Amino acid sequence: MRDIAVEIDNYIKRLFPICRSITGPGNRESLAILQEIAPIEIKEYPSGTPVYDWVIPHEWRVRDAYIRNSKGEKLVDFQASNVHLVSYSEPVAKTMDYEELELHLHIHPELPDAIPYRTSYYKRDWGFCVTHSQRERLREEGESLEVVIDSEFDERGSLSVGEVLIPGKTGKEILVSTYICHPSLANDNLSGAVMTAFLAKDLLARTDLMHSYRIVFVPETIGAIAYCAMNEDVMKRIDTGLVVTTVGGPGKFGYKQSYDPGHHVNAMIEEVFKEEGLDYITYPFDIHGSDERQYSSQGFRINIASITKDKYYEYPYYHTSLDNLDFVSGEQIAQSLGLYLDLIRLLDRNVCYRNLYPNCEVMLSKHDLYPKSGGAQVPRIGGKDELDLILWFLFLADGTHTLAKISHTMGVDIEALESIAALLSEKGLVSL
Amino acid sequence: MRDIAVEIDNYIKRLFPICRSITGPGNRESLAILQEIAPIEIKEYPSGTPVYDWVIPHEWRVRDAYIRNSKGEKLVDFQASNVHLVSYSEPVAKTMDYEELELHLHIHPELPDAIPYRTSYYKRDWGFCVTHSQRERLREEGESLEVVIDSEFDERGSLSVGEVLIPGKTGKEILVSTYICHPSLANDNLSGAVMTAFLAKDLLARTDLMHSYRIVFVPETIGAIAYCAMNEDVMKRIDTGLVVTTVGGPGKFGYKQSYDPGHHVNAMIEEVFKEEGLDYITYPFDIHGSDERQYSSQGFRINIASITKDKYYEYPYYHTSLDNLDFVSGEQIAQSLGLYLDLIRLLDRNVCYRNLYPNCEVMLSKHDLYPKSGGAQVPRIGGKDELDLILWFLFLADGTHTLAKISHTMGVDIEALESIAALLSEKGLVSL
Amino acid sequence: MRDIAVEIDNYIKRLFPICRSITGPGNRESLAILQEIAPIEIKEYPSGTPVYDWVIPHEWRVRDAYIRNSKGEKLVDFQASNVHLVSYSEPVAKTMDYEELELHLHIHPELPDAIPYRTSYYKRDWGFCVTHSQRERLREEGESLEVVIDSEFDERGSLSVGEVLIPGKTGKEILVSTYICHPSLANDNLSGAVMTAFLAKDLLARTDLMHSYRIVFVPETIGAIAYCAMNEDVMKRIDTGLVVTTVGGPGKFGYKQSYDPGHHVNAMIEEVFKEEGLDYITYPFDIHGSDERQYSSQGFRINIASITKDKYYEYPYYHTSLDNLDFVSGEQIAQSLGLYLDLIRLLDRNVCYRNLYPNCEVMLSKHDLYPKSGGAQVPRIGGKDELDLILWFLFLADGTHTLAKISHTMGVDIEALESIAALLSEKGLVSL
Repeated sequence: MRDIAVEIDNYIKRLFPICRSITGPGNRESLAILQEIAPIEIKEYPSGTPVYDWVIPHEWRVRDAYIRNSKGEKLVDFQASNVHLVSYSEPVAKTMDYEELELHLHIHPELPDAIPYRTSYYKRDWGFCVTHSQRERLREEGESLEVVIDSEFDERGSLSVGEVLIPGKTGKEILVSTYICHPSLANDNLSGAVMTAFLAKDLLARTDLMHSYRIVFVPETIGAIAYCAMNEDVMKRIDTGLVVTTVGGPGKFGYKQSYDPGHHVNAMIEEVFKEEGLDYITYPFDIHGSDERQYSSQGFRINIASITKDKYYEYPYYHTSLDNLDFVSGEQIAQSLGLYLDLIRLLDRNVCYRNLYPNCEVMLSKHDLYPKSGGAQVPRIGGKDELDLILWFLFLADGTHTLAKISHTMGVDIEALESIAALLSEKGLVSL
Repeated sequence: MRDIAVEIDNYIKRLFPICRSITGPGNRESLAILQEIAPIEIKEYPSGTPVYDWVIPHEWRVRDAYIRNSKGEKLVDFQASNVHLVSYSEPVAKTMDYEELELHLHIHPELPDAIPYRTSYYKRDWGFCVTHSQRERLREEGESLEVVIDSEFDERGSLSVGEVLIPGKTGKEILVSTYICHPSLANDNLSGAVMTAFLAKDLLARTDLMHSYRIVFVPETIGAIAYCAMNEDVMKRIDTGLVVTTVGGPGKFGYKQSYDPGHHVNAMIEEVFKEEGLDYITYPFDIHGSDERQYSSQGFRINIASITKDKYYEYPYYHTSLDNLDFVSGEQIAQSLGLYLDLIRLLDRNVCYRNLYPNCEVMLSKHDLYPKSGGAQVPRIGGKDELDLILWFLFLADGTHTLAKISHTMGVDIEALESIAALLSEKGLVSL
Repeated sequence: MRDIAVEIDNYIKRLFPICRSITGPGNRESLAILQEIAPIEIKEYPSGTPVYDWVIPHEWRVRDAYIRNSKGEKLVDFQASNVHLVSYSEPVAKTMDYEELELHLHIHPELPDAIPYRTSYYKRDWGFCVTHSQRERLREEGESLEVVIDSEFDERGSLSVGEVLIPGKTGKEILVSTYICHPSLANDNLSGAVMTAFLAKDLLARTDLMHSYRIVFVPETIGAIAYCAMNEDVMKRIDTGLVVTTVGGPGKFGYKQSYDPGHHVNAMIEEVFKEEGLDYITYPFDIHGSDERQYSSQGFRINIASITKDKYYEYPYYHTSLDNLDFVSGEQIAQSLGLYLDLIRLLDRNVCYRNLYPNCEVMLSKHDLYPKSGGAQVPRIGGKDELDLILWFLFLADGTHTLAKISHTMGVDIEALESIAALLSEKGLVSL
């Protein structure tokens, strides 16, 4: 894990400065860097494409943006921090008084030294986000402020998403989604994007996955909506998913429950926390949040949960320039990765076996499953006789009971059942 | 309400003396008077028509009935009270001894001054109902008692029912049924018939009804059975109904539960009582009772409840001549009407909206639903942000959750949801 | 019952010495004797027939078996007890040393004087079961031991099962199964086989059975499997059954629950024990046991329970020669029979009536069900007015509610409902 922490640190340092948004070259550049970690396929959805109630927006590109005084001093500079620019700002090149500029300035109400993060995606506008002292300085300047936003909207552009599909043995698919539309904000959500790439890498290295995994990197909201619209059939068959967000802060772990609090994904997350002996905060499902808003909507109703470390909305630096590389660390992200992998281990083993010989008992001796007579000790697994486990498993495995359910019924841990399932699969007696 | 109480008083005074039964001109006359209140359509079902296990009986008409002594004194007189005559009595014109007459006399076992109410619908018979002193007088008279019942049965007659259909916006229909077959008995059930006419009048004046209302005035039992048989298809689609009976006494309010105690109609009645701060008696569903016996039978299984004020069976004057205009009042009936209207307000708003954009979120700004940026306060409804309500409503309104259910899930009152539903309906985002 | 106890005693004395196994003439002979009690039809399933994962084995016949020393003394003799011979032993005729013989000797680890019961059905082998002193004697003998097993396997033989089908009024069938494959073991399971024959006799004598009864006598495991395979369609429609086993010991009554502990068969067994004031042991369903292993397998999922008296596995003489005629008695078996008959009385009355007039009420007077006017007392049944029972019964009997359920809903005992059901059936108002 230590090595991964270092690797993650390197990646977040490289990715942090890039200006990402809902569309644009920064997203593509970021996905290209993540491709070094895992073979992410980049898909482009053309601007102007209708996706449910929405339309994929024009691609936004920005080269530079600043506010300069009459002496040529840059008082606000996009190059210093891309958070200064309201994301998706329209182009401007005009010298104006402070009074006119002020309508386009945003400060953080509580943190004087933070640059707040603002967007204006669906209303053409422009703006700058500044610290309190920057605004003071601009106010003092008063007039002859040269405002430049060198941006453009390309109606022939596209929205970029990344996708990794990992096939498993069952027909069941699990969604893992993260968002890549935030500029230089480290916890929200560079942490999630990088962690998800490492998650994909880990799952790709396995050969024993039961379920399939659909791992996507999308701009929040419009990207998730576009992905649903473009992959409607498969998305409508998914039962469970995870949205990876804000996993790198120094604070407490927590998880946002999926809309059905009784869904197994929630129970499994709690199990993971308990196994690790970690304290955690439970955030009940709320209609606000991240892309679970799309994935859990009526048409899809996927139970989506998130494990977080300093959850969005909750930490003071949320959506400010202080959510930076001092706040997150590879170590912290690697810890979250470990929990997500533990969770996926649980989700992945949540399979339903089916006894292929449903009528009466199988003839154990014919399948070399009967304990040899002659005093040899019956093998014991999970504190029970193997023979008992075999008989109970064949009795209960009817294609509708998950291992978790059978484990609960029999009072035997899932590991023991997995070894029985493997034995019986090999004999051709059960199948997924 | 005071005005309505006076109006009701006038109507019950006019209607009280009319001799009603399961068939006959008295029923038609009564319905004609009720037509002054609401546009009741009168339907005639011909005598002899088979209706399930029953046959619509011949129409009964009675002009006069009395018992006269040899001096020509009328000792018992139908003109004084139509309760004196056993309803549906066959014609008689015979002078007889007391001994012969006695077999056809009915007294009330506990109330010496009351004339009991008796019928003989399905066994041809005749009889007189008298006070204890009247019987004593007849006994003293001993002989030469001239018994006259000037009645007839018309096999070409019909059974009359009244019907008001009030269309709503949803396909759902609610049944309101009352019975009109009792002669000069005020609480049971002149009170119910008059109240139901005023209920119909009130509903007809509304333009905002969600559900449709089927309001019927039938002779008890055979009329309800005939109505079911003649309107089987629509009746089999009805889920909820009310039987209006004994709503005008001076005593306590109560309600008879529908056969499924967990049905929302019962919860809503209790809610109405609680809102009004009224004490009430709960009568569990019983197989005896009024026309819920038909409407709740296996073939229809409508959950039928009744709000009562001095419920049938329960008050001492039940089915006697003392259930008269001294016992009921327009005021008391108007009080019951108020409760029924409150109940219908609850029943009527128990609708299921369906989000017409089930896949992912709608684009709020496109529908002008997004709070304007720039510091304007988000509107608050029912103690919550309007935006929250909109998002939750769109998430939950899937065409199967009633407003009551959504209200319970969200912890928001139905009024707030109704205003959200109206807003979203207007935007074309949800529909009934 | 005293008479039956004596009869049972006679039968177990005759049947005890016969050498039964999974196939062979001893089974046929035993069934022939049981035919004296009830008209059991004997069916033969040919050796070599595939039945699910199994094949019906060759028929085994044994004439004699012994171990003789050089002086011609029989140290172990099948004629003295057929338990001495490992069931299904292959033929042997060889003189050998004790060392060679020892590999084929079986003793009971805890009971020195008992001959243990052993089989080798699915692995061709031979062996003798002996007491500790017999083994000592053989060991002392040391050499020149003449071992003879005069047995044969007939691939053209068959497996014999017995069957009694008793038709009832409903389409529902109840399975009663017992096993006949054990040699001279009295409680396990001569007691069950004889008791089941008497059970069949009793049921055949009744004319009022509601359900049908399928009573089968099979060799354990392979016989039950063969029976399922040969009667798959009917067996898949059965919901409830009983496996009759070990019903004749001197010890405590008990019952093994069916796989669904909430199934009515379990509740009814407890009711029977309680009515009789008997203490009993509850054995939860276990994957080990008798032929419920087949009947409750996924393909059939019949809820099977067993009432036992000294249950298999539980008494010290289990599967030894000490499970003999000193251990069981006709009296004890007759007691179990009484409980089984009580249970069947409960199971049999668990029927669903259907009101043939589902729409509205029936016209009671037309069917002569209305209490006559004129002061005649309404008949009372089970503490309630007959009229109430009739109306409630017609309201609830919709073809899906069992009498037990209606009894619970109405708070009336089943006997009262049965008399109402009989009355209404006779009138043509309800049917099964």
